Amino acid sequence: MFEQTEKTDIQKLGEFGLIHHLTQHIHIKNESTQKGVGDDAAVLDFKGKKTLVSTDMLLEGIHFDLAFTPLKHLGYKAIQVNLSDIYAMNGTASQVTVSLGLSSKFTLEAIEELYSGMLLACEKFNVDLIGGDTTSSRQGLVISVTSIGYADEKDIVYRNGAEEGDLICVSGDLGGAYVGLQLLEREKQVFLANPNIQPDLEGKDYIVERQLKPEARIDIVDLLKKMEIKPTSMIDISDGLASEVLHLTHQSKKGCKLYEEKIPLDPMTVEQAREFGLDPTVCALNGGEDYELLFTIKQADYDKMKHDVDITIIGYITEESAGNYLITKSGNVHELKAQGWNAFTSTES
Amino acid sequence: MFEQTEKTDIQKLGEFGLIHHLTQHIHIKNESTQKGVGDDAAVLDFKGKKTLVSTDMLLEGIHFDLAFTPLKHLGYKAIQVNLSDIYAMNGTASQVTVSLGLSSKFTLEAIEELYSGMLLACEKFNVDLIGGDTTSSRQGLVISVTSIGYADEKDIVYRNGAEEGDLICVSGDLGGAYVGLQLLEREKQVFLANPNIQPDLEGKDYIVERQLKPEARIDIVDLLKKMEIKPTSMIDISDGLASEVLHLTHQSKKGCKLYEEKIPLDPMTVEQAREFGLDPTVCALNGGEDYELLFTIKQADYDKMKHDVDITIIGYITEESAGNYLITKSGNVHELKAQGWNAFTSTES
Repeated sequence: MFEQTEKTDIQKLGEFGLIHHLTQHIHIKNESTQKGVGDDAAVLDFKGKKTLVSTDMLLEGIHFDLAFTPLKHLGYKAIQVNLSDIYAMNGTASQVTVSLGLSSKFTLEAIEELYSGMLLACEKFNVDLIGGDTTSSRQGLVISVTSIGYADEKDIVYRNGAEEGDLICVSGDLGGAYVGLQLLEREKQVFLANPNIQPDLEGKDYIVERQLKPEARIDIVDLLKKMEIKPTSMIDISDGLASEVLHLTHQSKKGCKLYEEKIPLDPMTVEQAREFGLDPTVCALNGGEDYELLFTIKQADYDKMKHDVDITIIGYITEESAGNYLITKSGNVHELKAQGWNAFTSTES
Repeated sequence: MFEQTEKTDIQKLGEFGLIHHLTQHIHIKNESTQKGVGDDAAVLDFKGKKTLVSTDMLLEGIHFDLAFTPLKHLGYKAIQVNLSDIYAMNGTASQVTVSLGLSSKFTLEAIEELYSGMLLACEKFNVDLIGGDTTSSRQGLVISVTSIGYADEKDIVYRNGAEEGDLICVSGDLGGAYVGLQLLEREKQVFLANPNIQPDLEGKDYIVERQLKPEARIDIVDLLKKMEIKPTSMIDISDGLASEVLHLTHQSKKGCKLYEEKIPLDPMTVEQAREFGLDPTVCALNGGEDYELLFTIKQADYDKMKHDVDITIIGYITEESAGNYLITKSGNVHELKAQGWNAFTSTES
């Protein structure tokens, strides 16, 4: 990680000084951004396309733990999780606004770290940072991101378009972000108990990165376009597969059958979950934060994608009255329940 | 104020239950809102007009004190201050997203109060609430609002268009919100010292309302259109007149002369400021939160607006090298400095 040698108190800069300092090197990349940072509002032009808007809030102690989250990773993730919502509409993300609440413990250099992660994500995903708000916080770090994108009307994919017989597909693999979080939490406890013991994350890069540095799947959106497949419904997996599947089936007024053996799991996720005494399938169903795309396609589109290794078919859509079920490896049938990560219950203490 | 008889724990509802509960009665009012709450992103269509985007974050203990801020007023204000930015572009506000971080002290009924103020503001200003995020907070209440609007390209007013000789205008009157805040703070201290003494706000409704329930000046935007005046530059007054004037002149690369005697002050603001030993002009210059519009117009447009009592001409634009000055009532000349409300210095303790 970046070594902090300078410590500049942000109160010396003031709000306008800080905003200027952070935004002075922003270069606008998108033609749709007519005016970015620096006025009462940004001015955008989508030239007849539909505008897509999504927003997320990340709070210290709820969504992230600065004990094991590098600020640059956190900035990167804050943007990624928000862009993911635009991709889940089958759209192109083009702008973000970022509001930060900063407690006095943050030096200018720390904020620069956070911001550099945000700008890296913007750079990589061709998105302009067009505005925001920066204020002090009496409590912890507060991050609010609104992402804006566009799409042709004919391309937009909602949650409610799944039809009976459609195949349920998921990108990448699931459960890794949750298991990675358990690992980080464990190492934090070990460290707190004895600060001389260094975290043991050797060889666990993949699941740790799934938690700390998720990548929104714009590549899947591009791939589907190339394959000439328009999903019938789509959502991103922020709260766990079970919860997201139920969003699709409820909004589409359908049911589903999922097959446990089809749910894509990375070997490291399986191994680490077992070490913790967790069922890897449960981590995939209820863990959340994988930011993969879950979508349904017409059976007729199956041939176009059957050879793609990064998309897995995990089940199919049924009529609504058939309910929502998971068929386990042993052939048992379980009703799917949304027990995903819940921002309210997670703070029970 | 609303009497809370029911106390429902929000953890029982969970995030999705709470969102459903709060948003179930939202009716979309704008043609530009194609899809509001309920998918990964909202879908908007501005049919060839430019899209305007602005965002603000309000944090408990920094921007508001729940000891004297009714939740319904707070919700109303959170929307107003954000719409104000869209109006300051000479645009029409049409949508907002709202993200809330809620600590466990908030019951469902309290959140409903907050939300009802937000929806009242949306209703009154013809704006759709199209999405957001709701999460628990370990600390205080966190509110992040992003407002979205539209304008024809030819109508948009930036901060950087003021020309030498242009007249500097302000809507309404200034300083009231700041003096109102001082009054509320004082009554809070009195109450804390002796809870048997009830707050004495009798006859002070105007300045208390200026603080607790500001109204974004869409009426001024409409009035200017009716008068066929397009301001050459415009900004809303959130941080105090001095700071905002300097934004206009800096971005326009100009200077200005303001006349103290022209700055519009309500008699109650003057009286209450003096009671506190404050200079009412300083309250107007540096107090902030008035959410009036500050704008410049060509001299040729003067005749069109000279009879309007709700717009005051307070000075004029000079060349940049002439600097930024206030001419006091006694004829002294003071350089204008941005000493406005600063979210960072305000937490110094």
